[in-house]
Amino acid sequence: MIKNLSLQAFLDQLASGASTPGGGSAAALMGAMGAALVGMVCQFTVGREKYAAVDADMRRVLDAAESARKVLTDAIAADVEAFDRVMAAYGMPKDSDAEKVARTGAIQLALKDATEVPLACARACAEVIRLSAEAAAHGNPNVVSDAGVAVMAAYAALKSAALNVYVNAGSIKDDGFSSARVRELEALLAAAEGDVTRIFDAVRGRL
Amino acid sequence: MIKNLSLQAFLDQLASGASTPGGGSAAALMGAMGAALVGMVCQFTVGREKYAAVDADMRRVLDAAESARKVLTDAIAADVEAFDRVMAAYGMPKDSDAEKVARTGAIQLALKDATEVPLACARACAEVIRLSAEAAAHGNPNVVSDAGVAVMAAYAALKSAALNVYVNAGSIKDDGFSSARVRELEALLAAAEGDVTRIFDAVRGRL
Repeated sequence: MIKNLSLQAFLDQLASGASTPGGGSAAALMGAMGAALVGMVCQFTVGREKYAAVDADMRRVLDAAESARKVLTDAIAADVEAFDRVMAAYGMPKDSDAEKVARTGAIQLALKDATEVPLACARACAEVIRLSAEAAAHGNPNVVSDAGVAVMAAYAALKSAALNVYVNAGSIKDDGFSSARVRELEALLAAAEGDVTRIFDAVRGRL
Repeated sequence: MIKNLSLQAFLDQLASGASTPGGGSAAALMGAMGAALVGMVCQFTVGREKYAAVDADMRRVLDAAESARKVLTDAIAADVEAFDRVMAAYGMPKDSDAEKVARTGAIQLALKDATEVPLACARACAEVIRLSAEAAAHGNPNVVSDAGVAVMAAYAALKSAALNVYVNAGSIKDDGFSSARVRELEALLAAAEGDVTRIFDAVRGRL
């Protein structure tokens, strides 16, 4: 499992001339780091008398951040698997007409999967951005800078996942499928743009 | 060594109620991922006849990205160590006047170090952003999305490192020291702002 690789081994593989792991896995790991840091801010806040007024909210944020972290950690490997399925489909035989039809069908199916994986990553990152806003506003101010790192990590991951949605959706022949995914993605991106700057500035204001 | 932790263990520690690893280490890892992805794009470009015209440039970018990756990977642990030194200094005895003087001196020294570490991280991230521009413009278009992930990762890391510079510089009594560091940091941030959008858009244009 890729999540059991050491940081050094993961970085070495990322920097190598192999196709995977690549930007999709890096995006998922960045998103998972964002979720982890939201969780860290909550851990420094919940169960402390000083923050009793926000305790229930911060527990909810913590649970949601941990769920998002699980999704994003799983996406590190899912991105590699989706890429491998696309490559395997392109490698299918194409000598007979029947083989050509089977190959084209397999490629299109694999591309749909390779679009869904980064889109799910983008959705989870958008959630981490929303959660980081609560952590930045109500979390223990001693660790508020970690909420600022969280929002930037989740934003970088969202923008990165977007590139992989565009790449794969662009080769899908089912226009209804791809345009629905791109539309959802662009709504996530549009919502994030203003939010990220506002959350980062809120963190700076509480430093 | 923290770089020998698995991705899963690193994420678990990041999400925990322990102060370290925290946002500073996450920032360094994001920067290292950015450098690694610039390296990956170069690996798919150098030594190929089709890209002979940019071969020398891409080899230079690869070398520089690998150097930055080393600096940023080392910064994952350096951030923890700098934080621990600050905490150790705050924990020094302060019963006698002599102890108070020694403690204050140790705190100030540790804070200077804890400012230099994220500033060095920010410098390396600014370099990764510049390198990602070359990878995005001249690298193998089959992996250009990885240059887009690289620039977003390096940007998130730069903004994150900046928060740690602000936090620590804000407690330093030597105004000359802290204002020089903040000035350098703000020049790095200002240069990055426009560049990042331009590089990301260039990537989208080559998808």
